[in-house]
Amino acid sequence: MNFFDNIPTIRYQGPEATDPFSFRYYDAERMVAGKTMAEHLRFAVSCWHTFLGTGQDIFGSAVHSRSWSGANDPMERARMTIRAAFEFCQKIGMQYYCFHDRDIAPEGETFAQSCKNLEEIVKLAGELQKETGVKLLWGTANLFSNPRFTHGASTNPNAHVFAYAAAQVKHAMDATKELGGDGYVFWGGREGYETLLNTDMKKEQENLATFLHMAVDYAKKIGFTGQFLIEPKPKEPTKHQYDFDAGTVLGFLRAYGLIDHFKLNIEANHATLAGHTFAHELTVAASAGKLGSIDVNRGDLLLGWDTDQFPTDLYETTQAMLVLLQHGGIGRGGLNFDAKLRRGSTDLEDLFHAHIGGMDTFARGLLVADKIISDGKLNDCIAKRYSSYESGIGKTIRDGKADFDMLEKWILENGEPKLMSGRQEYLENLLNCYI
Amino acid sequence: MNFFDNIPTIRYQGPEATDPFSFRYYDAERMVAGKTMAEHLRFAVSCWHTFLGTGQDIFGSAVHSRSWSGANDPMERARMTIRAAFEFCQKIGMQYYCFHDRDIAPEGETFAQSCKNLEEIVKLAGELQKETGVKLLWGTANLFSNPRFTHGASTNPNAHVFAYAAAQVKHAMDATKELGGDGYVFWGGREGYETLLNTDMKKEQENLATFLHMAVDYAKKIGFTGQFLIEPKPKEPTKHQYDFDAGTVLGFLRAYGLIDHFKLNIEANHATLAGHTFAHELTVAASAGKLGSIDVNRGDLLLGWDTDQFPTDLYETTQAMLVLLQHGGIGRGGLNFDAKLRRGSTDLEDLFHAHIGGMDTFARGLLVADKIISDGKLNDCIAKRYSSYESGIGKTIRDGKADFDMLEKWILENGEPKLMSGRQEYLENLLNCYI
Amino acid sequence: MNFFDNIPTIRYQGPEATDPFSFRYYDAERMVAGKTMAEHLRFAVSCWHTFLGTGQDIFGSAVHSRSWSGANDPMERARMTIRAAFEFCQKIGMQYYCFHDRDIAPEGETFAQSCKNLEEIVKLAGELQKETGVKLLWGTANLFSNPRFTHGASTNPNAHVFAYAAAQVKHAMDATKELGGDGYVFWGGREGYETLLNTDMKKEQENLATFLHMAVDYAKKIGFTGQFLIEPKPKEPTKHQYDFDAGTVLGFLRAYGLIDHFKLNIEANHATLAGHTFAHELTVAASAGKLGSIDVNRGDLLLGWDTDQFPTDLYETTQAMLVLLQHGGIGRGGLNFDAKLRRGSTDLEDLFHAHIGGMDTFARGLLVADKIISDGKLNDCIAKRYSSYESGIGKTIRDGKADFDMLEKWILENGEPKLMSGRQEYLENLLNCYI
Amino acid sequence: MNFFDNIPTIRYQGPEATDPFSFRYYDAERMVAGKTMAEHLRFAVSCWHTFLGTGQDIFGSAVHSRSWSGANDPMERARMTIRAAFEFCQKIGMQYYCFHDRDIAPEGETFAQSCKNLEEIVKLAGELQKETGVKLLWGTANLFSNPRFTHGASTNPNAHVFAYAAAQVKHAMDATKELGGDGYVFWGGREGYETLLNTDMKKEQENLATFLHMAVDYAKKIGFTGQFLIEPKPKEPTKHQYDFDAGTVLGFLRAYGLIDHFKLNIEANHATLAGHTFAHELTVAASAGKLGSIDVNRGDLLLGWDTDQFPTDLYETTQAMLVLLQHGGIGRGGLNFDAKLRRGSTDLEDLFHAHIGGMDTFARGLLVADKIISDGKLNDCIAKRYSSYESGIGKTIRDGKADFDMLEKWILENGEPKLMSGRQEYLENLLNCYI
Ligand SMILES: [Co+2]
Ligand SMILES: [Co+2]
Ligand SMILES: [Co+2]
Ligand SMILES: [Co+2]
Ligand SMILES: [Co+2]
Ligand SMILES: [Co+2]
Ligand SMILES: [Co+2]
Ligand SMILES: [Co+2]
Repeated sequence: MNFFDNIPTIRYQGPEATDPFSFRYYDAERMVAGKTMAEHLRFAVSCWHTFLGTGQDIFGSAVHSRSWSGANDPMERARMTIRAAFEFCQKIGMQYYCFHDRDIAPEGETFAQSCKNLEEIVKLAGELQKETGVKLLWGTANLFSNPRFTHGASTNPNAHVFAYAAAQVKHAMDATKELGGDGYVFWGGREGYETLLNTDMKKEQENLATFLHMAVDYAKKIGFTGQFLIEPKPKEPTKHQYDFDAGTVLGFLRAYGLIDHFKLNIEANHATLAGHTFAHELTVAASAGKLGSIDVNRGDLLLGWDTDQFPTDLYETTQAMLVLLQHGGIGRGGLNFDAKLRRGSTDLEDLFHAHIGGMDTFARGLLVADKIISDGKLNDCIAKRYSSYESGIGKTIRDGKADFDMLEKWILENGEPKLMSGRQEYLENLLNCYI
Repeated sequence: MNFFDNIPTIRYQGPEATDPFSFRYYDAERMVAGKTMAEHLRFAVSCWHTFLGTGQDIFGSAVHSRSWSGANDPMERARMTIRAAFEFCQKIGMQYYCFHDRDIAPEGETFAQSCKNLEEIVKLAGELQKETGVKLLWGTANLFSNPRFTHGASTNPNAHVFAYAAAQVKHAMDATKELGGDGYVFWGGREGYETLLNTDMKKEQENLATFLHMAVDYAKKIGFTGQFLIEPKPKEPTKHQYDFDAGTVLGFLRAYGLIDHFKLNIEANHATLAGHTFAHELTVAASAGKLGSIDVNRGDLLLGWDTDQFPTDLYETTQAMLVLLQHGGIGRGGLNFDAKLRRGSTDLEDLFHAHIGGMDTFARGLLVADKIISDGKLNDCIAKRYSSYESGIGKTIRDGKADFDMLEKWILENGEPKLMSGRQEYLENLLNCYI
Repeated sequence: MNFFDNIPTIRYQGPEATDPFSFRYYDAERMVAGKTMAEHLRFAVSCWHTFLGTGQDIFGSAVHSRSWSGANDPMERARMTIRAAFEFCQKIGMQYYCFHDRDIAPEGETFAQSCKNLEEIVKLAGELQKETGVKLLWGTANLFSNPRFTHGASTNPNAHVFAYAAAQVKHAMDATKELGGDGYVFWGGREGYETLLNTDMKKEQENLATFLHMAVDYAKKIGFTGQFLIEPKPKEPTKHQYDFDAGTVLGFLRAYGLIDHFKLNIEANHATLAGHTFAHELTVAASAGKLGSIDVNRGDLLLGWDTDQFPTDLYETTQAMLVLLQHGGIGRGGLNFDAKLRRGSTDLEDLFHAHIGGMDTFARGLLVADKIISDGKLNDCIAKRYSSYESGIGKTIRDGKADFDMLEKWILENGEPKLMSGRQEYLENLLNCYI
Repeated sequence: MNFFDNIPTIRYQGPEATDPFSFRYYDAERMVAGKTMAEHLRFAVSCWHTFLGTGQDIFGSAVHSRSWSGANDPMERARMTIRAAFEFCQKIGMQYYCFHDRDIAPEGETFAQSCKNLEEIVKLAGELQKETGVKLLWGTANLFSNPRFTHGASTNPNAHVFAYAAAQVKHAMDATKELGGDGYVFWGGREGYETLLNTDMKKEQENLATFLHMAVDYAKKIGFTGQFLIEPKPKEPTKHQYDFDAGTVLGFLRAYGLIDHFKLNIEANHATLAGHTFAHELTVAASAGKLGSIDVNRGDLLLGWDTDQFPTDLYETTQAMLVLLQHGGIGRGGLNFDAKLRRGSTDLEDLFHAHIGGMDTFARGLLVADKIISDGKLNDCIAKRYSSYESGIGKTIRDGKADFDMLEKWILENGEPKLMSGRQEYLENLLNCYI
């Protein structure tokens, strides 16, 4: 059964190509800075948006209908959907996929039945992985859609729900291990509060920490060695989510003795919802040695919700790839398209345009970032700006050998500092020289 | 020399009072929940806004002119200003004041001269403290107004500026100690970045940590036992400030081994600029045992800058006082009016209306919060909501004795959790019963 | 069939009442400023949120299940739902209801069948109106939920959809007329654009104007004399909606010769999404003589989407009622609760708490606003502030008899104006004297 | 006296140039779409930011010091500043400049003296225009910086201030006429309100309209034929400004019979502060035939204030130039750099980098936009999308010959519309093909 027969296989055709069903920049095997583009970018498709997205929004019902979603039987739908996913990946040259447990297999009448459903599809997915070479980037559990998680999962005021979430994550982790996933993601969509009037914030956060410790223990027990990742998001669906942004999550992990076991999965749109740029969140994570993986998409900064648009802004992708190249790359993580078609993009072709655009804009961003680094002008400016810490009083400070008394004495001798331009406008022009 | 002769001394006259120069709720000696109102609230006036504010904004020049600012000689202006401050506190019954070094004494031609200026005014302030009984809540150093701090103080790319900041904080801490301040505040107005294109975020944050360690050491050395406080603010003047919000600062303090030495000074308007409610930030700080002091004011949530308006919203003050009462009070901290007159409030009388309104709204909030706690209805709702953690599987989880296998087994036996209402609308109505 | 048997009839019990199923302020027959509270407030329930809301959000499926929604047959569900609506109104003392065509009757296989469905339920609603005395405030057509309206209704690039929308509004207007509705509302949820890359803004707005002219003509033809209302909203679901805010809509109506035929239906949460206060939008509409009706709810200013919470902030309701009282009241409009339960408010009781809270907070706001106006202090301040326009050069200006030459001459003679305080802090304190 | 001797004259050197003191795209005489780049772009420097900007912000004092600002005598400073302005324009090839009255000449002790000061500098500016060929794009009056305008100018509650504003605008218009300005701009920085508690919105807007009518009359009287322009901005400095955005201003102009006499001056950063894209505001203005001129700059969408950064985003400038090219160009308006150096950009060189970057990014945007239009693909997509209005029922609708009855009948015959993709992702990719 082929779902995309009328779509050509997407291939690299170069910057001058006018065929919208081709890559203009993404050339998987091209070497850049010592690695292939594919090794740098490790693109993944997200099962939820790309294969289950319907264009539904809060004011309107499903618009997109897909041939793989037509069956009446939920398990038959699930089998067709996972087949469509692998076919899509092959057609477009996507190396990885990501899933929530409930994306790939439907909930059953009982928890046991849900687990059985998941196992069946995981078996099929494993076979398809072998057939196609497409791999699992990471798995996760959906702990936010079902009504039982209305008030949170591990932060739910009801211990029964905590237990349910634990049981569900156990199986999602089993599934991820079986499929050889490189990571396992925790996104706490309802791990937060709607109103402080009914909330014991401290207790909820303690419970969240307890839950994550259990996850660490379970991974150890089963020998799952994929990277644990927390995906920060400040709000939506919940008014406040505890994993607000990278800085907050790192602080939480440190406070509860979890810092050694987790890295971060940074999403562009979640960064901007928290009031940060994408590059900021990437830098915060990378500076702490905790940049684990990336959800690539794009928000609309004039809108206050998670629009999860496909990334097409070359400035954004360039700056993201700069952070990656300068911090040793994405490691076992990848660039997952947590992005969805606009409601009005109703055609199957639109799915391809969307991913092609996203992959190409990141590939182009990689090329630009590589050029910036090779040229060295930008980094030279930065190095020069901080050079006073390389010797003299600056070095003494960096070496931890200065104190207030010494510095006061030094100032009394050395007087007023000289003002240096930050050269922001020059650097913005310089960036445009590479774009 | 009396600056406020035409203003009557402000006294408590009760809720039915119509005299705008009276308190309707703030009755300093009234007992509430075992302490006087004055002990609960520990109000402070901020020297910068209240005595130096001119109504100037980015599109217009100074509007407010004060009799104490008329002298040509800067030191004479400083002496008159500090006298005006103490007279104001006496007139309105304010127990505390707060200052930056450069509010109370002008910069001199050299650093040494600046220090001398500061020392002279500190001496005068000490005498006025004795005369009036007004005390110092906390001191701080202004490390953001002078051009030398354009690119930051301890995070400046130029080590020379780091040294200057160290020297300046040394003296500001000396001054605070001499005046018996209960705390010392760090607000990092330019400790952040304008563009990542010229910034080494990690190096800057390491330098910030180094600086704070030096401050801890210096306090120890001189025997300053006031509480160190960091005041989070996400942006303005800088695009991004490292002390973004309470969660970020706590994480930073943990990462750099500073957590035992600092508490937080939470400002209402900074909370909302970071996308949080005031009560949220207070709760984050208090939950970590780190609520040190409060800058009371109010932002305009439809405006994107720090409006620093006087607090007049009874809902806000009630929720703030609820957090305080439930977490053991403000301790050695206080409620500092980091709030300024609107540009258009040109009269001396307006200064009094502003502070009276702020003090009264907090006093009223204290009364409402006390009533809510005495009644017990709200807390009963919360306790009941989390009661499943008091026994059975919930207790096992809280005791750290559960794991994923056990919880899965429990779920297989116990099935689907029951959905419980969060009762938000009921609780909002309940709150209105006390307002 | 009674859906609310375990809920008592809600009655006024006075401010000291502790029964959460009572009104503390809303006393329908109480006289305030010459009219009963019921005449001032003309409360309406919204069929969509209150009877069809499920707590569903973009990250989770339906949570609330209602006894009237259980039937398999859509028409049977519709009949039960409309009966539940009238029972609810009687139980809580709601005088009015509002509906979209597709709330009260399901779409059929064909347009003709949809019309037939609507007619049947309208007939039933008419009977229930007679039985209960509950009346229709306004009707409207849902031109945004069905996939056919994905790219807009009257602004759709496809003329076929324009025609469909016209046909649908025709029947919704027929229904509203038959049920004696006092108004008919146009909310253009998808009348806007997602990206300018595919949009001809001018053509779309011209088509919108053409559509509204047709509606005016049709109303005239059938003798519908209810007030036409446009409900501004800036964004969500669409990135940009043409009816951005009150000012924009008034400008559009003037540009296209429609100003005489329409008033505005102002929603609190739409005001804040547009960057305005609720009171601002009410004042803009009222100043133009165009305040037609109100959707009462409340947004969360820290969240960027339409939360449609129930109104419980006494400051907001007081300021809204001040605008109403000072502009001659709401006329044939009313206060429609376009507000929905939080997802986590799962119980039937929560529906009552929500509406009781909203009604009570507006009733209390009415009492406070009336007191403010009776006292006269606030209005006196305003009158005094503008008094310079009552005589002399100010009167000459207001009379349209001044010109630049005359005013320059006057300034040369009269010199610099005297600065007057705007007294904002005093006025905020004054407001708190009434709260 | 030469202020920029160490800066080379900025010349076009082509895209491969690495000299930061050159244009890579702006080639004044290059023909694009039938006009020279200079004719398309009509760049102007703003006297306030570029020559008077000091980097001062609300938390810090002046940083930038310029050689032309050194004189003690204000009139000598003014003479040097205007000379510097013309030298700058020549050095960088800027054709136009814009000013406020108080930028170019200082206020005197009396209004008469202020007028005399202005006249003297205007005379000098006229001579410099002749010498250099640099021309005046538009003039305006600063009615917001002086304390007298704290509560507004023409909307001031004090008629005396209204008169003062009138007298001042009279002279600013005289000056603009004398210097042959192509336009005269009204930006109502304080024409709005801080709180509704002290405001009569309707009266203030009526007074604003009266003022603008006087301006129209005065221009007619003196024979000033430059274009009158209103520059919308939603907030800052004032909480709410009446000229909120393009749609609001157009509505206001229609309501008060002013629409024939005014066009709009659209600023990029003001657009985003109002919740719109720059391209949106340009399109709103252009669609109404009211796009008069442009203030080119860039905001930071994560910050809530007017950052007035130099424009360097190629996507933004491309979309702006697309609107211009498709609506017949900017006419007698121009592209005025209402943009300021970052506080940290302390060097004279930074002034050049900033303007070079802005001019180059717009020149490049012009080239890209021209290519998009020449290719025709984008416009073909749009034309095809609306093609249903070219014939059949669509044409009947556009011709104003359809009504609800006819359209219902047509729907009953023609059934359900077919869903068409909006192709947003495809179009975003297409745009990237030109960038
Ligand atoms: Co994501
Ligand atoms: Co997202
Ligand atoms: Co503060
Ligand atoms: Co502040
Ligand atoms: Co509404
Ligand atoms: Co709404
Ligand atoms: Co401007
Ligand atoms: Co601006």
